[in-house]
Amino acid sequence: MNQDNKDKPMPVDDLCLDLDRKNRCGFSEAIYAPGKPPEMILRAFSELHANGDHALATRVTPEQIEHVTSNLKEVIVNREAKTLRWMTDSSEEKTKVSQPLIITAGSTDRPVAEEAAETLRWMEYEPQLLFDLGVAGPQRLLKHVETLQQAKVIIVVAGMEGALPSVVGGWVSCPVIAVPTSIGYGTSFGGATALLGMLNSCAANVCAVNIDAGFKAGYLAGLMSK
Amino acid sequence: MNQDNKDKPMPVDDLCLDLDRKNRCGFSEAIYAPGKPPEMILRAFSELHANGDHALATRVTPEQIEHVTSNLKEVIVNREAKTLRWMTDSSEEKTKVSQPLIITAGSTDRPVAEEAAETLRWMEYEPQLLFDLGVAGPQRLLKHVETLQQAKVIIVVAGMEGALPSVVGGWVSCPVIAVPTSIGYGTSFGGATALLGMLNSCAANVCAVNIDAGFKAGYLAGLMSK
Amino acid sequence: MNQDNKDKPMPVDDLCLDLDRKNRCGFSEAIYAPGKPPEMILRAFSELHANGDHALATRVTPEQIEHVTSNLKEVIVNREAKTLRWMTDSSEEKTKVSQPLIITAGSTDRPVAEEAAETLRWMEYEPQLLFDLGVAGPQRLLKHVETLQQAKVIIVVAGMEGALPSVVGGWVSCPVIAVPTSIGYGTSFGGATALLGMLNSCAANVCAVNIDAGFKAGYLAGLMSK
Amino acid sequence: MNQDNKDKPMPVDDLCLDLDRKNRCGFSEAIYAPGKPPEMILRAFSELHANGDHALATRVTPEQIEHVTSNLKEVIVNREAKTLRWMTDSSEEKTKVSQPLIITAGSTDRPVAEEAAETLRWMEYEPQLLFDLGVAGPQRLLKHVETLQQAKVIIVVAGMEGALPSVVGGWVSCPVIAVPTSIGYGTSFGGATALLGMLNSCAANVCAVNIDAGFKAGYLAGLMSK
Amino acid sequence: MNQDNKDKPMPVDDLCLDLDRKNRCGFSEAIYAPGKPPEMILRAFSELHANGDHALATRVTPEQIEHVTSNLKEVIVNREAKTLRWMTDSSEEKTKVSQPLIITAGSTDRPVAEEAAETLRWMEYEPQLLFDLGVAGPQRLLKHVETLQQAKVIIVVAGMEGALPSVVGGWVSCPVIAVPTSIGYGTSFGGATALLGMLNSCAANVCAVNIDAGFKAGYLAGLMSK
Amino acid sequence: MNQDNKDKPMPVDDLCLDLDRKNRCGFSEAIYAPGKPPEMILRAFSELHANGDHALATRVTPEQIEHVTSNLKEVIVNREAKTLRWMTDSSEEKTKVSQPLIITAGSTDRPVAEEAAETLRWMEYEPQLLFDLGVAGPQRLLKHVETLQQAKVIIVVAGMEGALPSVVGGWVSCPVIAVPTSIGYGTSFGGATALLGMLNSCAANVCAVNIDAGFKAGYLAGLMSK
Amino acid sequence: MNQDNKDKPMPVDDLCLDLDRKNRCGFSEAIYAPGKPPEMILRAFSELHANGDHALATRVTPEQIEHVTSNLKEVIVNREAKTLRWMTDSSEEKTKVSQPLIITAGSTDRPVAEEAAETLRWMEYEPQLLFDLGVAGPQRLLKHVETLQQAKVIIVVAGMEGALPSVVGGWVSCPVIAVPTSIGYGTSFGGATALLGMLNSCAANVCAVNIDAGFKAGYLAGLMSK
Amino acid sequence: MNQDNKDKPMPVDDLCLDLDRKNRCGFSEAIYAPGKPPEMILRAFSELHANGDHALATRVTPEQIEHVTSNLKEVIVNREAKTLRWMTDSSEEKTKVSQPLIITAGSTDRPVAEEAAETLRWMEYEPQLLFDLGVAGPQRLLKHVETLQQAKVIIVVAGMEGALPSVVGGWVSCPVIAVPTSIGYGTSFGGATALLGMLNSCAANVCAVNIDAGFKAGYLAGLMSK
Repeated sequence: MNQDNKDKPMPVDDLCLDLDRKNRCGFSEAIYAPGKPPEMILRAFSELHANGDHALATRVTPEQIEHVTSNLKEVIVNREAKTLRWMTDSSEEKTKVSQPLIITAGSTDRPVAEEAAETLRWMEYEPQLLFDLGVAGPQRLLKHVETLQQAKVIIVVAGMEGALPSVVGGWVSCPVIAVPTSIGYGTSFGGATALLGMLNSCAANVCAVNIDAGFKAGYLAGLMSK
Repeated sequence: MNQDNKDKPMPVDDLCLDLDRKNRCGFSEAIYAPGKPPEMILRAFSELHANGDHALATRVTPEQIEHVTSNLKEVIVNREAKTLRWMTDSSEEKTKVSQPLIITAGSTDRPVAEEAAETLRWMEYEPQLLFDLGVAGPQRLLKHVETLQQAKVIIVVAGMEGALPSVVGGWVSCPVIAVPTSIGYGTSFGGATALLGMLNSCAANVCAVNIDAGFKAGYLAGLMSK
Repeated sequence: MNQDNKDKPMPVDDLCLDLDRKNRCGFSEAIYAPGKPPEMILRAFSELHANGDHALATRVTPEQIEHVTSNLKEVIVNREAKTLRWMTDSSEEKTKVSQPLIITAGSTDRPVAEEAAETLRWMEYEPQLLFDLGVAGPQRLLKHVETLQQAKVIIVVAGMEGALPSVVGGWVSCPVIAVPTSIGYGTSFGGATALLGMLNSCAANVCAVNIDAGFKAGYLAGLMSK
Repeated sequence: MNQDNKDKPMPVDDLCLDLDRKNRCGFSEAIYAPGKPPEMILRAFSELHANGDHALATRVTPEQIEHVTSNLKEVIVNREAKTLRWMTDSSEEKTKVSQPLIITAGSTDRPVAEEAAETLRWMEYEPQLLFDLGVAGPQRLLKHVETLQQAKVIIVVAGMEGALPSVVGGWVSCPVIAVPTSIGYGTSFGGATALLGMLNSCAANVCAVNIDAGFKAGYLAGLMSK
Repeated sequence: MNQDNKDKPMPVDDLCLDLDRKNRCGFSEAIYAPGKPPEMILRAFSELHANGDHALATRVTPEQIEHVTSNLKEVIVNREAKTLRWMTDSSEEKTKVSQPLIITAGSTDRPVAEEAAETLRWMEYEPQLLFDLGVAGPQRLLKHVETLQQAKVIIVVAGMEGALPSVVGGWVSCPVIAVPTSIGYGTSFGGATALLGMLNSCAANVCAVNIDAGFKAGYLAGLMSK
Repeated sequence: MNQDNKDKPMPVDDLCLDLDRKNRCGFSEAIYAPGKPPEMILRAFSELHANGDHALATRVTPEQIEHVTSNLKEVIVNREAKTLRWMTDSSEEKTKVSQPLIITAGSTDRPVAEEAAETLRWMEYEPQLLFDLGVAGPQRLLKHVETLQQAKVIIVVAGMEGALPSVVGGWVSCPVIAVPTSIGYGTSFGGATALLGMLNSCAANVCAVNIDAGFKAGYLAGLMSK
Repeated sequence: MNQDNKDKPMPVDDLCLDLDRKNRCGFSEAIYAPGKPPEMILRAFSELHANGDHALATRVTPEQIEHVTSNLKEVIVNREAKTLRWMTDSSEEKTKVSQPLIITAGSTDRPVAEEAAETLRWMEYEPQLLFDLGVAGPQRLLKHVETLQQAKVIIVVAGMEGALPSVVGGWVSCPVIAVPTSIGYGTSFGGATALLGMLNSCAANVCAVNIDAGFKAGYLAGLMSK
Repeated sequence: MNQDNKDKPMPVDDLCLDLDRKNRCGFSEAIYAPGKPPEMILRAFSELHANGDHALATRVTPEQIEHVTSNLKEVIVNREAKTLRWMTDSSEEKTKVSQPLIITAGSTDRPVAEEAAETLRWMEYEPQLLFDLGVAGPQRLLKHVETLQQAKVIIVVAGMEGALPSVVGGWVSCPVIAVPTSIGYGTSFGGATALLGMLNSCAANVCAVNIDAGFKAGYLAGLMSK
């Protein structure tokens, strides 16, 4: 038996990027940062860039941000979204025309909306964001009905009872991607209540993703914007 | 040891009515019918009537209805609400002026709304009912905003995601009593999802009762209408 | 107090169709049949038809089927999907070219897939269906990878562990709508396990709807096929 | 694509106060503090004050307290309730006569009772508080039955098994607003057990709000005290 | 491989009575009837009787009752408790002096109380039963405080919010065995809410058994009455 | 649009047997009967037999049994296990020598044990079965310790608290496959409690399968007996 | 409105001891320490001592220990149990003869066993403790069967699958008080799994208390030892 | 009453090793480190070594590692697995030939895989590990099908939706031990979702262990490799 594994360090340079993903799925692999050493994220960004791909890392910590940005100056940080993004030079001019719409119920839902927005930017879409349209102030949404009805796809981000996607869904003819957030207390159960509300929406055009899953919502909205 | 309990029948004539309740709580005891023999309900109605009280039984079965109504001709049946109600003669003329408002999200929520309505009638209020104002057709509620804003108390009955109480709550300055119903499928979990949505309402004026608890909602609305 | 509500019948002819929905949402209201009297469904179909709309009823019982079809001869019954559908004459020739793809994991998932398919037909799409591609026989899906990769949207219907949407998601660049079914036993918890698996999919292009929600999946796929 | 969002700061001065709420709902928007930068709370207080409204912030942290009170000297701090409150000058003399009653089961339930009390004070009611009347010492509540029976509305705050609202409900003819607290351990499940007990109260006059929702209970009691 | 198991009948005469249990545990094995063929219960009663033991079967169906009583004339049936009991002749005169007390909250909790009572009779105790002392009518329990304080052990049977054991516990110096019942609706979750309330009782002298477990409560009370 | 799907029958003869499974997995596909028309099971048995495979159907209904056995005389019925099994002629003589051991806690756990046993017989093993060794009669298991310690793999079937696999695991050096059953009431939650107990076993050699999953336990035991 | 509540301190000297409890329940109130200021515990101890009562505080923090013991030299600290205990002088000689038995499954269950032991000592019983008799090493319990069978009451403390109370229950004729602990990981769900196992014990003489509720178990054992 | 327990220290040198376990179960007791003082682990290692046994401690903290390794130089540390392992000299040469296979879905599942690997090394097996074969990149697993099909037993470690064991199970004829990990967010519920997926696998050869239970999976794989 090998004694070499005595006091083995954490595997900071094991990296198994699925570089074929762009072929199969149209976009390269995004990096889910939790639990990954900063060096691993840096290396993944470098490999993706060398491969001609845009790079995205979600749920990054301040340490991960510091390590990556001190090495790669062009990387875009969004501290509210907790993302790092690195676009290849050529992308600047070709931003796509379709504008996915992102709506939040409350101000504390913004970081999840921003994660979705950064994901769309990585996919070369520039989303439109509308904040604080929650149902406790119903007159606020009514002002935007025309904007809603022109969208091709809408992401609705809401915590607590998660009622906003149903209300939006009732006004529009496009798919609504509902993102529950972990905002709330007591029986919000970390977002499970909002998610259940969204899954049981009486509006037929509402689908749901996992709690706080801004990345998935953005990714799906990008696919639906083609 | 006594052999008398050999093959003892079901205790059809044990009856422990809390006849003091009207003194303490303002209204006599209502009969929750499930599991009670029809004869027990008949006897309770007779005792309450003899005591000068209005009588109400909720969640009655067809057998219980048949047994009571074939013996007591003045009893009012509401098959949708599954209630029996017997008013003392004097109540006819003194119906109270306040009109609690009851709203439902969908047509299948009606039986619970009717249970609340019958409870209010037993308390000598005549509620106003508005049906099918669920959020999937948001233009429907908007037509009634003025009516909502004139109410002293509103009962909102909704299943599925239970979003309607939040939306109603955002328009009004009175208490909203939210009643989740067991309408839905899959992750509606028999009404638990609607209840959770109501408890987590972002509107501050929403309280909740148990699933399908039309009686409690009506009772509370009656107390708040004084 | 009015004695007219004495022994009031079930409200078979109350009908509150949201006839404005086609304007707001692009499609008319579909009828969710559970708990509705057969006459109410018949009347809704007639009203929708008079309005020039296609009609769809889901989760119909044999009694509801019998009542509607004995009155309306052109209505299409799908007993596996538990649907009734009535298309206006003009629709026959204009079926849309896009073919949404529907995949099932096991043979018992078929009724939910058929509900999705009937919904798409009501929206004037003709879906392509592939059955029994569950992960326990992984070679079966591999034969269809090319078909998967040509789809614009894919509905994946699966019970038990609900793993198929993740596997499909890994091969394609289009949105995957995952529909958990209540197929399974023990800790399948009536489909909740499959739903949880789908919400936690490691594939970024997977969104989910409620358990057994074939209608919602079909409706969303129709919106994404435009 | 715009590089301006590179290392974007947290949005400390985005503020979307629903200043119309007082018109619709009778009271201005209260500030739910968690996750909000101290400057945002300060600015909201200033805007509300400029609008002639009383201001209330709940669940404030020591940092938020420090920032607001060092800038606004008239703001009232309640460290037990974790609230900040700023009354317009004119309110001092017009405190309303009705005295909502607040009862706690145990001494650790006091912070939630205080949050309800502060909310009532912000609505210009001065509540009466009774502490430590939990059911393990049943003789304690009995001494206060007369006080209970004179109330127009009672808030009952309890953790653990949440039995006190039922017992109070059995003595009185007014609505009881039950507030579960997260006090307890093991199967108290952070207050869910207390909430379930309250929702299943055998007393008909008990409604419930979310766990630790002192603000909601106070707000509802204020509305019921008009 | 043996073909003898072709179309093998249900194993009606496999019987594995733990006849040693009386030595180890003081009482013979009681028969939990669900799923057992009537002949198996008859045979168990006969074996126990031959061994000189009292016999008890719980949760018996009408068919099981019919089969056993038509063969064994001395067996005592309690249809409310759903029990069969067969005492050896000698037990009649030696009934023990201690009288365990059994209390119910509501009338629908009686079958569980009767199962506990029958279990105590099988152990040669004659319990005292008090019905309908639920907390919604708090004055009822107060009349019995002296009786409560004289008991050596008290079984409290309650459904819904399960508050009665806490209230009883606060008045007495003996152990309280709390039995949750499946009485309730909605969020009573088949008795889980009552059980959780009992486990979280603020009274220190309350222990709990499984939902509807009248047998266990009776058995434990018997052991504590020695 | 095709009118051929008007009143389409249930798809009784769609059959997608994975006939390659024997190559990949060593055994042919077993038929999970729920929801399948009797004709489909009959046809699957015929196809498997024609392919030279043993056939097994689990969770069969009396109707399915009747249909299959009236057509195929050699099929072996086990009504307790709810299985149908058809062995090719050649299997009679080659039954494997290894004897997997199956133990049950209570007599109502037997059907699940029989399902496991039938699965092993289909795999050409003849299991040894020991019944009623539950922990409430601990002296019973002790008599069999030597038998336990000679086994190569043990299936332990238990409901209620599911404690038996831990106790067995503490005596032996082979893998223990724990099968929770849905036997119990109240907080047994249909077997979830037993499953949780088994997953948290303090014995290191215990793995678990789904509730009532006799087939899976038998299949795994067969694989471990090679 | 009173400005006196501006920046109100935490209520360190509010104290509502139920000094009547000893009359009603036989023992004085024990202090549940979490969330209480150290001064409040010190004052409660002083008041109880002045009243001639033994004092007990459970779940004390190091700060609470430090504050109380630096002021009251006779107070007994048990850091493993996290208790403080102050006995009146007279108790030393009158320790009761009955010896309740406390058993643990694993070494990490000891703090809960010690809390039970300290509670018994406060009630003037000296318990016997046996550690590490968990079912993974079944031969260990067998050595103590005789000791078990002589006990009048047994407390069994166990985490993980919580199987030990069932095994103990099967050997004895006295009540078994099962205490689940929060020891375990993953699906132990903080002790809920152990609790569920105990509630579903197939042994009839097992009752349960809340997770980690050593105090309640000790208190009940003391009451049963009289 | 003894004052010796005044301020009693934590029981650092109580040690109850089950040294008989190797006789009964084939392997000595492994040390589950959480909550144990470092000295206790050191002493256990010394006792096991003196007894001629290999020693293993799982879930060790840095403090425990530091204390043990500074005293025992031959102990092998695996910081990723959080294990300490001490092999007797003689084991070096006799490593067993069978090579259990361990597969992970994602890179963050590696620590659990390493715990399983260390457990196998302690049992004198040298496992083969394959990382990052999750279903989102389905082409990756396909490259290893031949390796899978040669294994005698496979451990599959996966978080999130836990789909990988089903896919692996569909390709092989050996038992698959599925280990859910707590990797994920939102509705991954700390690994419960992955576990549920594994328990409901449509592949018949999949059994499951507790969340993150690398030790159990390794132990079972070792037993199945004999």
